[in-house]
Amino acid sequence: MTWKLLVVNGPNLNLLGEREPEVYGAATLNEIITDLTAYGAERGVAIAHFQSNVEGELVDALHRARGSADGIVFNPGAFSHYSIALRDAIAAIGIPVVETHLSNVHAREDFRRTSVLAPVCLGVIAGFGAASYRLAVDALVGCLEARPAEG
Amino acid sequence: MTWKLLVVNGPNLNLLGEREPEVYGAATLNEIITDLTAYGAERGVAIAHFQSNVEGELVDALHRARGSADGIVFNPGAFSHYSIALRDAIAAIGIPVVETHLSNVHAREDFRRTSVLAPVCLGVIAGFGAASYRLAVDALVGCLEARPAEG
Amino acid sequence: MTWKLLVVNGPNLNLLGEREPEVYGAATLNEIITDLTAYGAERGVAIAHFQSNVEGELVDALHRARGSADGIVFNPGAFSHYSIALRDAIAAIGIPVVETHLSNVHAREDFRRTSVLAPVCLGVIAGFGAASYRLAVDALVGCLEARPAEG
Amino acid sequence: MTWKLLVVNGPNLNLLGEREPEVYGAATLNEIITDLTAYGAERGVAIAHFQSNVEGELVDALHRARGSADGIVFNPGAFSHYSIALRDAIAAIGIPVVETHLSNVHAREDFRRTSVLAPVCLGVIAGFGAASYRLAVDALVGCLEARPAEG
Amino acid sequence: MTWKLLVVNGPNLNLLGEREPEVYGAATLNEIITDLTAYGAERGVAIAHFQSNVEGELVDALHRARGSADGIVFNPGAFSHYSIALRDAIAAIGIPVVETHLSNVHAREDFRRTSVLAPVCLGVIAGFGAASYRLAVDALVGCLEARPAEG
Amino acid sequence: MTWKLLVVNGPNLNLLGEREPEVYGAATLNEIITDLTAYGAERGVAIAHFQSNVEGELVDALHRARGSADGIVFNPGAFSHYSIALRDAIAAIGIPVVETHLSNVHAREDFRRTSVLAPVCLGVIAGFGAASYRLAVDALVGCLEARPAEG
Amino acid sequence: MTWKLLVVNGPNLNLLGEREPEVYGAATLNEIITDLTAYGAERGVAIAHFQSNVEGELVDALHRARGSADGIVFNPGAFSHYSIALRDAIAAIGIPVVETHLSNVHAREDFRRTSVLAPVCLGVIAGFGAASYRLAVDALVGCLEARPAEG
Amino acid sequence: MTWKLLVVNGPNLNLLGEREPEVYGAATLNEIITDLTAYGAERGVAIAHFQSNVEGELVDALHRARGSADGIVFNPGAFSHYSIALRDAIAAIGIPVVETHLSNVHAREDFRRTSVLAPVCLGVIAGFGAASYRLAVDALVGCLEARPAEG
Amino acid sequence: MTWKLLVVNGPNLNLLGEREPEVYGAATLNEIITDLTAYGAERGVAIAHFQSNVEGELVDALHRARGSADGIVFNPGAFSHYSIALRDAIAAIGIPVVETHLSNVHAREDFRRTSVLAPVCLGVIAGFGAASYRLAVDALVGCLEARPAEG
Amino acid sequence: MTWKLLVVNGPNLNLLGEREPEVYGAATLNEIITDLTAYGAERGVAIAHFQSNVEGELVDALHRARGSADGIVFNPGAFSHYSIALRDAIAAIGIPVVETHLSNVHAREDFRRTSVLAPVCLGVIAGFGAASYRLAVDALVGCLEARPAEG
Amino acid sequence: MTWKLLVVNGPNLNLLGEREPEVYGAATLNEIITDLTAYGAERGVAIAHFQSNVEGELVDALHRARGSADGIVFNPGAFSHYSIALRDAIAAIGIPVVETHLSNVHAREDFRRTSVLAPVCLGVIAGFGAASYRLAVDALVGCLEARPAEG
Amino acid sequence: MTWKLLVVNGPNLNLLGEREPEVYGAATLNEIITDLTAYGAERGVAIAHFQSNVEGELVDALHRARGSADGIVFNPGAFSHYSIALRDAIAAIGIPVVETHLSNVHAREDFRRTSVLAPVCLGVIAGFGAASYRLAVDALVGCLEARPAEG
Repeated sequence: MTWKLLVVNGPNLNLLGEREPEVYGAATLNEIITDLTAYGAERGVAIAHFQSNVEGELVDALHRARGSADGIVFNPGAFSHYSIALRDAIAAIGIPVVETHLSNVHAREDFRRTSVLAPVCLGVIAGFGAASYRLAVDALVGCLEARPAEG
Repeated sequence: MTWKLLVVNGPNLNLLGEREPEVYGAATLNEIITDLTAYGAERGVAIAHFQSNVEGELVDALHRARGSADGIVFNPGAFSHYSIALRDAIAAIGIPVVETHLSNVHAREDFRRTSVLAPVCLGVIAGFGAASYRLAVDALVGCLEARPAEG
Repeated sequence: MTWKLLVVNGPNLNLLGEREPEVYGAATLNEIITDLTAYGAERGVAIAHFQSNVEGELVDALHRARGSADGIVFNPGAFSHYSIALRDAIAAIGIPVVETHLSNVHAREDFRRTSVLAPVCLGVIAGFGAASYRLAVDALVGCLEARPAEG
Repeated sequence: MTWKLLVVNGPNLNLLGEREPEVYGAATLNEIITDLTAYGAERGVAIAHFQSNVEGELVDALHRARGSADGIVFNPGAFSHYSIALRDAIAAIGIPVVETHLSNVHAREDFRRTSVLAPVCLGVIAGFGAASYRLAVDALVGCLEARPAEG
Repeated sequence: MTWKLLVVNGPNLNLLGEREPEVYGAATLNEIITDLTAYGAERGVAIAHFQSNVEGELVDALHRARGSADGIVFNPGAFSHYSIALRDAIAAIGIPVVETHLSNVHAREDFRRTSVLAPVCLGVIAGFGAASYRLAVDALVGCLEARPAEG
Repeated sequence: MTWKLLVVNGPNLNLLGEREPEVYGAATLNEIITDLTAYGAERGVAIAHFQSNVEGELVDALHRARGSADGIVFNPGAFSHYSIALRDAIAAIGIPVVETHLSNVHAREDFRRTSVLAPVCLGVIAGFGAASYRLAVDALVGCLEARPAEG
Repeated sequence: MTWKLLVVNGPNLNLLGEREPEVYGAATLNEIITDLTAYGAERGVAIAHFQSNVEGELVDALHRARGSADGIVFNPGAFSHYSIALRDAIAAIGIPVVETHLSNVHAREDFRRTSVLAPVCLGVIAGFGAASYRLAVDALVGCLEARPAEG
Repeated sequence: MTWKLLVVNGPNLNLLGEREPEVYGAATLNEIITDLTAYGAERGVAIAHFQSNVEGELVDALHRARGSADGIVFNPGAFSHYSIALRDAIAAIGIPVVETHLSNVHAREDFRRTSVLAPVCLGVIAGFGAASYRLAVDALVGCLEARPAEG
Repeated sequence: MTWKLLVVNGPNLNLLGEREPEVYGAATLNEIITDLTAYGAERGVAIAHFQSNVEGELVDALHRARGSADGIVFNPGAFSHYSIALRDAIAAIGIPVVETHLSNVHAREDFRRTSVLAPVCLGVIAGFGAASYRLAVDALVGCLEARPAEG
Repeated sequence: MTWKLLVVNGPNLNLLGEREPEVYGAATLNEIITDLTAYGAERGVAIAHFQSNVEGELVDALHRARGSADGIVFNPGAFSHYSIALRDAIAAIGIPVVETHLSNVHAREDFRRTSVLAPVCLGVIAGFGAASYRLAVDALVGCLEARPAEG
Repeated sequence: MTWKLLVVNGPNLNLLGEREPEVYGAATLNEIITDLTAYGAERGVAIAHFQSNVEGELVDALHRARGSADGIVFNPGAFSHYSIALRDAIAAIGIPVVETHLSNVHAREDFRRTSVLAPVCLGVIAGFGAASYRLAVDALVGCLEARPAEG
Repeated sequence: MTWKLLVVNGPNLNLLGEREPEVYGAATLNEIITDLTAYGAERGVAIAHFQSNVEGELVDALHRARGSADGIVFNPGAFSHYSIALRDAIAAIGIPVVETHLSNVHAREDFRRTSVLAPVCLGVIAGFGAASYRLAVDALVGCLEARPAEG
């Protein structure tokens, strides 16, 4: 079977590879998604991708995932810490979401240690650079294979 | 006289009827607005409606209300709890706004018990499902009839 | 069908019309109840009323409502902010209660922004002066008509 | 020797057996006091009882206990969490008081985890339903027998 | 001219002279009021007195003072720290109130350092035993003589 | 029927009788357990005992109680205030546990007023010296007799 | 007998009569001290005065009061809220000190509601304008007459 | 040399001159930008301008500034207090940003006293009305002239 | 090359499969480690395992890992929330550690949302049941392959 | 017209150029004031200067400014964070004060992010090194020219 | 006379010389104890030593010190910040204990600034590397010589 | 070599021997400094001394120490808890400072448990009476001998 996963990236992640590479790594977002798509293809997983700096467009993207995605890899960036609107969207759509971060957010400023999204996600993966996305794909596939498909 | 009221709905309310019906009820947003328009018509109230998941578009909608609306029924959804931009917009436009919620936000997670908008609104109505909107319309009509029209 | 509603007013509300009219309005409590009784009569609602400055007498009044009232319009005044005894009474009696305030408590001192009662009420209406009571009556009637009577 | 113990019950405890039986048990207050009186009689303990929903009447009851009671079993209900007036009364009367609760207050809402009374009581017993009262009687008798009578 | 002052004492103050004399002194409340009445008589001040352990009866007493008292010496006891109902009563009646304490509340438990009443009182006097009442009388007389009588 | 109860004592309780007798009493732990065993024997209750200053050994002891004890009298000493590992152990083993303290912890330092264990215990008994253990035994027997045995 | 009282005024009080008269009144510090000296003379009280804007000079003045003053009327101004050095000075000198304020500090900004000095003072008087000083003199005289002189 | 500065204005600033002129002044945003452009021209500074009520569009504008602007005058309005996304954008782009406010935000509501952006900005200027923008331009020019150009 | 990974499990994890299976799953710790060892073998990873309920033994195990392990999969259980001793051990040993949890700790009690260990770990994986361990192994292998071996 | 501005520098600023130059820059206070005086002379502004490490001497200096200065550039150094005495002095003197900092205090320790002075100042300028003073002069001149002179 | 001192070291201190030498120095624990023993011998002080990573074993060691040690040099490592069990042990044993740290804990993470042990110790020495132990020995000898020996 | 050490004492320490001897001991400051000077002389250490109750004079003294002292023994008294000005002075002068207290500040009021100075000091010594000064001298000598002289 083929799983359809949506990868959603939040604010400033379009700058990956350019912005603070000592924190976020040297790969661009395009390179990461290209690699992840290949990674998924080897595992029978189709990867779709969406990035926006606008909170409401991310809400919209999560809404649209209903019917088109079996699981969501979500790097909310800074919205992790305050976007209750995204929390409500995750709770509303009934699709497993993995909160995913490139950096170990717990090793940075104090305000990055609180996620308003994590309580309504399936789980959290943080700190492994671009590999965090691949681990999140694996986590979702494992979760999806362990339960009946959503339709 | 005919009052013009704007109904503004914030993030995730476009999913009404689909999302967590045990919390938010079974009616869709379209059904609620259709019913509310009929309810208003019986009372000589014209209802306009705007919904967006984007905070800034809600700010824009509030701005546009100047000159076109006598009062606003505003269900800010999750933005109730953190959008100081919307608070400033409400304070700026000089039109009475009723903060309106379908659910009793005080009976849910702790973070839903704080509204950054309520201090600059006319009042608050929460907990009565779709009827909250009708009560808000009545509250605004009562308020408008008790004072000279805004021009 | 005729609904029986109990209106309960807490401390200092006996001074309405005399106390800080710029905050609470110019109508006396008697005038408000008289008007509300007429308002109810037009809608097939019988209004009973009780006011006390003593927390425990309000607890008693809520207890007595079991068997004699279908719903309660409760303006707890200052007790909203600290009377856990009243909270327990509301939770105990199994009758829908609407927390009702004349003023928009969120626009006043910080300590007025927390209600220990709201989490066990059906909903909250605040900020519309004497009209808050009428809206609360409408909210209760709507709630009662939407579910089977309590007996 | 015969010990005279006063059992004092605070707000909403008059509803025992009717109110939230899954939390507070099915026995009425009358049944509990009748059983407790028999339990005391077997141990040479005379039980007096007072219940009120009015904080000040409970203060009065504690005051009156001076001269008429050797110890007090006090279930303050919700007043446990905020009645500094009752705290001062307990500190003033010089009679050992056991704070007694039917439910395990620590397993409920956060605000029930703080007692303003416990620091001036002899000790605390909570979580054993109606048996909490019997344990409190035993605790007081043990305390009284271990020290010279109060006159 | 003769000023009419009301002295109001809150919970547990009826035990004065018996309760923790090392904190509150050895004089009974009757003795204090008798002395204070004589003290007032020498200054052309008529003293009325009210004591209750019931918060709501103190609210009632403050309400009744309208029309019958020019100023109020109020020792709220423990209610100083949590009775917003009494705060609202003081704000409502438009009569100068001096919050008065026998002990220096700031030198005791932390929770005694916060008064919810002081912000709506004329001023505060604490720490001088029974003399605190006499100082409060003097403070009120000074205040009343400095402004036109309340009618 | 014979109930098997395990008494578990945490850190520093091995010093009982030697350590701060004005707080904890003059009886040694051995004396207390000997007395408690006799007390239990009269009531058909077999008492086993375990004491350790090592948190993890207390976790082990709670684990071992599965299958060998019907109820647990647990005086966690200082671990009451921070050992989430013990909390998880109590929640895991499915045996009723009574948190038991010799002293009234609420009358001591502020940090002793919070128990991380109490929310997963059956109830709490504190403040009665060695008698606290006997009351806990009685509380457990009452609880066990009121429900079907655990096997 | 003649009592020697020291009046100490802290920062910005040298501007009295010029600074924010709606808060602090129209009398200058010189006028207040002149009046107070006359007031004292009538009662057999000798008044000395010291004002400084320098915290350490106020500490010095309190130190010097040992041997030369029987009591101290201290208006610490802003230092009330943070000068632990002054607190230590008051505790060190063994002379009764009355914390005195012209305005009702509780009715102003939140940070003015905490005094780090009050716990080591004899008592507090606040809110009566220049009369606060006279009341503090009376309070000290009453206190001094009630106990043996300090040598 | 000519410096290129970008002026970015956040939510509700499009209402300048219409919204609460007692707080924000009477000049419209167009007038301010026109004046500022002239002011810049006299100093060899080219001014570009962008305003949006949408947080994500402001993030985008900051991103686009890389390569086209030497410095940024940023009035984030309400986003100052909660937009971590904007904070991350400022940290990412490596261009000096001056946080600029028309009003003295410290003299208003408490929540306006915290800026999540200031720690990653070059500096802060607040409280001088439209002149704040001119001062920010001067500050940036000074900063740019003191270090080698960004290319 | 073969990587040597140490899997360390903290308190109560020895009960896996028996304790609250709705939270932690039905597999026993032995089954999980057996599966994980096979999983590792397929990837050229040797798995060693250690479990203890004693904080200090876990500290010892982390110390011993120096020289014998290339990375550590650490499920600290409850110690995640308070064991600064374990934090110091992780910081001391210079081996990459992945904090790993079976459940999504963010979706449980509030106190489980804070990890004192995460800031000194490589990253965090939580919420995927037994699969969390496999993901942690993959994360460590990825990390180790991306940098020169530790010797 | 010539404006008279007073520049006031608080504790440790006498060490400028010697103390932590990476934070505060390499210019000495003398050099900064000399440059600023020249800067002012070009603009028709007379600069006076005062520096002290003693809080009370700074209070005195602010008092003396009445009558001799049209505006004040105030770098309070560490006193920004706790000197309520200086806050009261600023509020008392009725002269516009600009709080001025060399460094961006928001980018340093947390306690430097709170200013107790800013709410009573005209505005704040921070982060531009010695240029902060010049910007403050410009800000004051702009403010003074926009309103009638103080005499 | 010869004093017997016990040196107790807590978790991770066995790694001294290997762990973060920039924080803790290059000497191993063995070297430090060897040096300290020689240092003691010169002063007629016999040094015993105990180290453990297990909190309960440290409690045991403190208990055993009764009868065998005149004073204790205690470096609790991370347990300083949360081990109330160790606090109770120190309070129980009646032997002077000096809390001793190699590093200046106040200059590190915030959580290291709170010691739950210090309030029951004789004093605190922190920040002088291995010399902290020698200073603690001197402090204890000074204390012991100033009072009669413990037997 | 001879080290030059400056001993600085803050507010109220001039009263040593007179003020609360049960807390601070019976020796006067002169006696302590005389003894300390002799103690230093035996070790080739020259002791200079400065005491003031004025925060700014202590700042000045620290400044003057540059060039004249190799290390500083600083007992800041109450300023330990709030004087950020002194903190900045210590950070500015680049001389090792040992925060020194006579009493164990951690065993007193809560506010004495926080030092704003400790994070920028070399270390802390508290609780050993006058011996604390001698230990601080030893600590500084040890530190100075372990590194090259400051010139």
